[in-house]
Amino acid sequence: MKTIHILNGPNLNLLGKRQPEIYGHDTLDSIAATCKALGQELGLDVALFQSNHEGTIVDQIQTARATADGIILNPAAYTHSSVAILDALLAFDGPVIEVHLSNIHKRETFRHHSYVSRRADAVIAGCGAQGYSLALRHMATLLD
Amino acid sequence: MKTIHILNGPNLNLLGKRQPEIYGHDTLDSIAATCKALGQELGLDVALFQSNHEGTIVDQIQTARATADGIILNPAAYTHSSVAILDALLAFDGPVIEVHLSNIHKRETFRHHSYVSRRADAVIAGCGAQGYSLALRHMATLLD
Amino acid sequence: MKTIHILNGPNLNLLGKRQPEIYGHDTLDSIAATCKALGQELGLDVALFQSNHEGTIVDQIQTARATADGIILNPAAYTHSSVAILDALLAFDGPVIEVHLSNIHKRETFRHHSYVSRRADAVIAGCGAQGYSLALRHMATLLD
Amino acid sequence: MKTIHILNGPNLNLLGKRQPEIYGHDTLDSIAATCKALGQELGLDVALFQSNHEGTIVDQIQTARATADGIILNPAAYTHSSVAILDALLAFDGPVIEVHLSNIHKRETFRHHSYVSRRADAVIAGCGAQGYSLALRHMATLLD
Amino acid sequence: MKTIHILNGPNLNLLGKRQPEIYGHDTLDSIAATCKALGQELGLDVALFQSNHEGTIVDQIQTARATADGIILNPAAYTHSSVAILDALLAFDGPVIEVHLSNIHKRETFRHHSYVSRRADAVIAGCGAQGYSLALRHMATLLD
Amino acid sequence: MKTIHILNGPNLNLLGKRQPEIYGHDTLDSIAATCKALGQELGLDVALFQSNHEGTIVDQIQTARATADGIILNPAAYTHSSVAILDALLAFDGPVIEVHLSNIHKRETFRHHSYVSRRADAVIAGCGAQGYSLALRHMATLLD
Amino acid sequence: MKTIHILNGPNLNLLGKRQPEIYGHDTLDSIAATCKALGQELGLDVALFQSNHEGTIVDQIQTARATADGIILNPAAYTHSSVAILDALLAFDGPVIEVHLSNIHKRETFRHHSYVSRRADAVIAGCGAQGYSLALRHMATLLD
Amino acid sequence: MKTIHILNGPNLNLLGKRQPEIYGHDTLDSIAATCKALGQELGLDVALFQSNHEGTIVDQIQTARATADGIILNPAAYTHSSVAILDALLAFDGPVIEVHLSNIHKRETFRHHSYVSRRADAVIAGCGAQGYSLALRHMATLLD
Amino acid sequence: MKTIHILNGPNLNLLGKRQPEIYGHDTLDSIAATCKALGQELGLDVALFQSNHEGTIVDQIQTARATADGIILNPAAYTHSSVAILDALLAFDGPVIEVHLSNIHKRETFRHHSYVSRRADAVIAGCGAQGYSLALRHMATLLD
Amino acid sequence: MKTIHILNGPNLNLLGKRQPEIYGHDTLDSIAATCKALGQELGLDVALFQSNHEGTIVDQIQTARATADGIILNPAAYTHSSVAILDALLAFDGPVIEVHLSNIHKRETFRHHSYVSRRADAVIAGCGAQGYSLALRHMATLLD
Amino acid sequence: MKTIHILNGPNLNLLGKRQPEIYGHDTLDSIAATCKALGQELGLDVALFQSNHEGTIVDQIQTARATADGIILNPAAYTHSSVAILDALLAFDGPVIEVHLSNIHKRETFRHHSYVSRRADAVIAGCGAQGYSLALRHMATLLD
Amino acid sequence: MKTIHILNGPNLNLLGKRQPEIYGHDTLDSIAATCKALGQELGLDVALFQSNHEGTIVDQIQTARATADGIILNPAAYTHSSVAILDALLAFDGPVIEVHLSNIHKRETFRHHSYVSRRADAVIAGCGAQGYSLALRHMATLLD
Repeated sequence: MKTIHILNGPNLNLLGKRQPEIYGHDTLDSIAATCKALGQELGLDVALFQSNHEGTIVDQIQTARATADGIILNPAAYTHSSVAILDALLAFDGPVIEVHLSNIHKRETFRHHSYVSRRADAVIAGCGAQGYSLALRHMATLLD
Repeated sequence: MKTIHILNGPNLNLLGKRQPEIYGHDTLDSIAATCKALGQELGLDVALFQSNHEGTIVDQIQTARATADGIILNPAAYTHSSVAILDALLAFDGPVIEVHLSNIHKRETFRHHSYVSRRADAVIAGCGAQGYSLALRHMATLLD
Repeated sequence: MKTIHILNGPNLNLLGKRQPEIYGHDTLDSIAATCKALGQELGLDVALFQSNHEGTIVDQIQTARATADGIILNPAAYTHSSVAILDALLAFDGPVIEVHLSNIHKRETFRHHSYVSRRADAVIAGCGAQGYSLALRHMATLLD
Repeated sequence: MKTIHILNGPNLNLLGKRQPEIYGHDTLDSIAATCKALGQELGLDVALFQSNHEGTIVDQIQTARATADGIILNPAAYTHSSVAILDALLAFDGPVIEVHLSNIHKRETFRHHSYVSRRADAVIAGCGAQGYSLALRHMATLLD
Repeated sequence: MKTIHILNGPNLNLLGKRQPEIYGHDTLDSIAATCKALGQELGLDVALFQSNHEGTIVDQIQTARATADGIILNPAAYTHSSVAILDALLAFDGPVIEVHLSNIHKRETFRHHSYVSRRADAVIAGCGAQGYSLALRHMATLLD
Repeated sequence: MKTIHILNGPNLNLLGKRQPEIYGHDTLDSIAATCKALGQELGLDVALFQSNHEGTIVDQIQTARATADGIILNPAAYTHSSVAILDALLAFDGPVIEVHLSNIHKRETFRHHSYVSRRADAVIAGCGAQGYSLALRHMATLLD
Repeated sequence: MKTIHILNGPNLNLLGKRQPEIYGHDTLDSIAATCKALGQELGLDVALFQSNHEGTIVDQIQTARATADGIILNPAAYTHSSVAILDALLAFDGPVIEVHLSNIHKRETFRHHSYVSRRADAVIAGCGAQGYSLALRHMATLLD
Repeated sequence: MKTIHILNGPNLNLLGKRQPEIYGHDTLDSIAATCKALGQELGLDVALFQSNHEGTIVDQIQTARATADGIILNPAAYTHSSVAILDALLAFDGPVIEVHLSNIHKRETFRHHSYVSRRADAVIAGCGAQGYSLALRHMATLLD
Repeated sequence: MKTIHILNGPNLNLLGKRQPEIYGHDTLDSIAATCKALGQELGLDVALFQSNHEGTIVDQIQTARATADGIILNPAAYTHSSVAILDALLAFDGPVIEVHLSNIHKRETFRHHSYVSRRADAVIAGCGAQGYSLALRHMATLLD
Repeated sequence: MKTIHILNGPNLNLLGKRQPEIYGHDTLDSIAATCKALGQELGLDVALFQSNHEGTIVDQIQTARATADGIILNPAAYTHSSVAILDALLAFDGPVIEVHLSNIHKRETFRHHSYVSRRADAVIAGCGAQGYSLALRHMATLLD
Repeated sequence: MKTIHILNGPNLNLLGKRQPEIYGHDTLDSIAATCKALGQELGLDVALFQSNHEGTIVDQIQTARATADGIILNPAAYTHSSVAILDALLAFDGPVIEVHLSNIHKRETFRHHSYVSRRADAVIAGCGAQGYSLALRHMATLLD
Repeated sequence: MKTIHILNGPNLNLLGKRQPEIYGHDTLDSIAATCKALGQELGLDVALFQSNHEGTIVDQIQTARATADGIILNPAAYTHSSVAILDALLAFDGPVIEVHLSNIHKRETFRHHSYVSRRADAVIAGCGAQGYSLALRHMATLLD
């Protein structure tokens, strides 16, 4: 059974509470539950992490080198500024899928650029909480 | 039963024949078959079109105003230059999902910008042919 | 009696149906009728065309070289991207007036630049359907 | 009877004397006469002002708040640099039409940008002295 | 007793009347009264001027060289374009505090840049009419 | 009694020791004391925090959602690069005032842009340690 | 015997009639005749096409995949804006030579950039109608 | 005897008092005296004006159309922002020489660009007060 | 005996394991050993730290103010985005040498700019692990 | 008999030895021989020069004013930076053809811009050594 | 008696022969004669040099360190690209005056920027051959 | 025994005499002596050259192809503008180390970009004359 880490960046712990008109009403816990269930169906062991700290996300990606087969990453605000997260991902060998709850390309200009996309195999944006499920489905295909 | 139009831009008729290392080995016909089957499962009537002509894609989007509930659009090369397609989409009321076979954000800079994203509800890029299936699943959720 | 071609770009066939808060409630047919009537008053034979295809608009401008004394052009979305239409106009000898229904200069930045303006003798923007009538009046003066 | 103020920016007092190949042979006085006559026909009371001073144009726009129903403004050189005139117009409630004698979009690049367009309902450029008459006709429609 | 000049740029004479959702409901007269009262409390003699004319504001700053110990300046629209006001301030030896009623950094991009800030000792933006009082308090400290 | 959190970004723990010609001689402790005293006078309960870690500041802002009525934030170096802090502030409902000890607009160009200003109600820059007191006074007004 | 397709973009059907001071006096027919004759001399079967439609040029390039050994392309106005033509060329395996009648690098700035050059093996610009003959000679060498 | 107008922009009335390390110790009066004397020697009638008001400088240039054979202009701060002064100069037929006391090209970037240079026949910068004398000598040559 | 702190940024803990074709085969531990040995030879006490957290690196630099005579810093990914690290270094009085394992100036454009260089006395890039030794040698010279 | 100078810029003396995958296997001597032979056939006297020194190329172009009827120039690296060579060419009256061995428009961005193209009548790029022969053929036509 | 070196850049040896509508009819020899004569009048020993080689001009400036009291430099094409000439001038202690025959600020954009101006005390442009005489007069004043 | 060429660009012959606060007090001769001595210690034969002429440096690099195993290059002012030197280096097979006496990244912006870095294996900047010694040490390692 393959292991997938779903890593979440700053302020995603507020999901469901913060600006629901942009980010939706699901909480990170309900997303975790949905993903674990879908993972079981797809034969994937799913673990979900969140941190507001760029360094901690770098740590988590480094940990994933030994313990995960694929990474699904919603870098949130660090999407646009973090070379450190990009560099950590460049040291990870498995597939990487970038997820954004909102369609960042129709928001403010500074949200259009992603450092993470230089490494990500795929990007899913604007599908809300369902984006994680879609990413998981694609991950299952990639790991086959 | 809801109807979904899957519109495809220039050179996508060559799918499976052109640069498979970037665009994959599936043909547009096999994608159509997969999507129709998945559509049936999801309760969606799926029709797929392709054109190399910007104007024809505008025509197809205008047609969809009367005959489709949602549009899945892979604008291919017109992603980056077509204001006409954007304007046609702005006159369409249902959900719009933008699909790219490759992750356009890790390719040449001129492929990073999308006019279509100003209107699209969601963007799925880099999932290859599976991107259409994921888009269809999200479309089903949006139309619920 | 002089002949004026009024050429219209993509999505203008939807006029009156699409985003009326931006483009107004007049249809292209009613504009054609108003312009023909005003043309008669001003001693001008008026013909109106529309196409969603950049190449067809280029064809129409080329045709106008032999059959029209002046061109009134609403290039719509092709305003901002079409060098081909500009080049066709550069091969036309009579006066050219550029018309936009909305004031493109107070909309999104990418709508501010016009290739057509490099050739147009005059620009009328933001007067809605009346813009065509004003253009026709100015055309009459220019052809005197 | 509605009142329209036609405000003119720097160097327009030289009209008819300065660079007639760009700005035409009409003087500001003859334009005033033409506009007053047309105004009478359209049921509009027309007054024309000119100043070389940015501050005076701001003053005139502020005065128009109490004494005019619409403003037709040829900001001339201040088009491209005056935030103060824009701010004054933002405090005016009636319709505003921007007029330029020449087609500023085919001249030097620094003449392409207009601060005034951020507020103007319509823009008429390149119709020479007739531009004022066309603006007046559109103003009559707007005030109906 | 020290003297402070509070100089105000274009359209600020409309304060309380123009776009109160941006600029608030206080008039320039009430601000003058508040500031004079607070000045007395702080041991400062306060005089307030306003002009729509860039040149007049330059004149006022030059006058302040002989008659004022500090300048509080709300340059309004001239903030973004006036090198002349900057140069006048560079010839003034006392402290200069720049005040903006609204937070110009969350408005249109062209309002983000200030020539005056190259000389101002401090900037207070977005505090509405109270910004003048806060500036006066800081001025008192600087002149101690 | 309302509660105000004064949050301070990286290197502000060195205040009074680091580059006093730019940042002044007050320490963060003396600022805390001054603010608590002034808070008492204004009927505000004041708490001051500092961290060199972007993620910790995000945490502190999230905490403030439940425990504070207003935030006064000196984001220091994170002003210019942190979308994460901006996003955290967007999830805070009360007033936010941005403070900078120096006038960042007369320093190096990269210090001119502030992500935080997209959310801050007001900005006070260049007033040194007194900037916190002025912010507190304005906060009292906003919370009235 | 090898086959060469000479494809021509918008407005080149007007060759010899449009702006001869820029594009010369030869017509497309006389160029076709000259090229066929030279082709025979060089052992190349030459066919010439023209279209004002971007989509049709994409179609022609796709056709050339099966029927031509090399492409000589004068993309005219589409040089500067067509990613679709570039993408079609990327799916063609033989040599591609880009021809421009005028030296586009000494004309307006927007004519300096060519998407097609990202794929073309060679570029010949400013040699007028003879440019096609020179391209044919080089094509013969490349196909040897 | 030919007449030369020497026009001076904002803050030049402070010459000799303001920032002498940049602008020198001569006053505008002493420059006027020197220039009149040199003018007499060269057979030129010299008059010197100064204004802090952009509009007044435009007025003075318009006056010069009837009363002066050449203009020597130190536009000071308006060098960098005034299209109105440029437009006034474009309506003046005689020679125009632009003078700057300091070498504006080694100062802040925003002082490098001059609208006036688009019309000026010559530019003399960094020669301090002597710049006016040198300009007068060159003017004498041009008017010969 | 002088003390030197060698500080290392994010992902450098992976040295020797991550992308050895770019970063080489030495681990951070072997570099520490080499540097301590060389330090002894040069009369320098060497301590090496690493963190993935920007805030921790700021903390380490602040600590170095009291405990180190010089800093050798490989900021890794934070080179390009961290104003906080720059500000911390600005509060450090001794020499600072910036080290990069790869020649960042021949990699992606976003790796060319360094905030740290605004403070660093010297930069050594592209010498791999030996870069630390060279930096130490130069540090010894600077501290003599 | 007309004389043609073929001038070659820096590093072209290494032709055939340096990076043959970009510049091909022909040496400058073999190119000279080929061109002289073709010249004889076309009735042109051909001389070939090379220098690594910008100034020497300027000298050679100045010499050509008296001794050559046309210039074929491969400016190599000086293409992108030499205004001096452009200025020398502007003082030459005959036809000028610019040659590049590789297609500079598909290489690094800094190789896309050519100062020489502002003067060159034609540009031939990417045809390798044959580019000189093609240029000679076109030169023969131009000099007819 | 002080010594002045007048250094001239590439193509100035063609003066009087090349593009006289831009550069005038004087030759470098006649300018040398005029300057020597004026020098004698002003008590200055004048020597004039010219080279097409950037390196030679650097050499000449280095020579001037020991043998000249001031430099008048017309860097011609090297104005816009030569950091080497700038660096040489930075090692020269006396006054430096930059001369251009034409007003470079009204020519092509790439001629607006001067590296030399970062060091030059004064700039005289557009005065033709007389520019050298004016520079000499100012040099005399500076060396007094 | 391996041979190393140390090449030095314009104005470095003035080393020790020019701006010692930036470039230090060592002369090029003393650097040559130090490097030869260190070379002997490291088993390297060291030769040092200097030229103010870009073309001569290109010549020297071409010579090094046959006679040197490695190049240490301080391109000085040509760092920022010379594509010719870059191209010459691209034709050299051995290691290349770029040296700058000052830290060019904390000086004027135009000194931040290096064409040479596109080829250099390593860059050492800001170590003064010692930079050459450090480069030599690294060269010894590379050639092992």
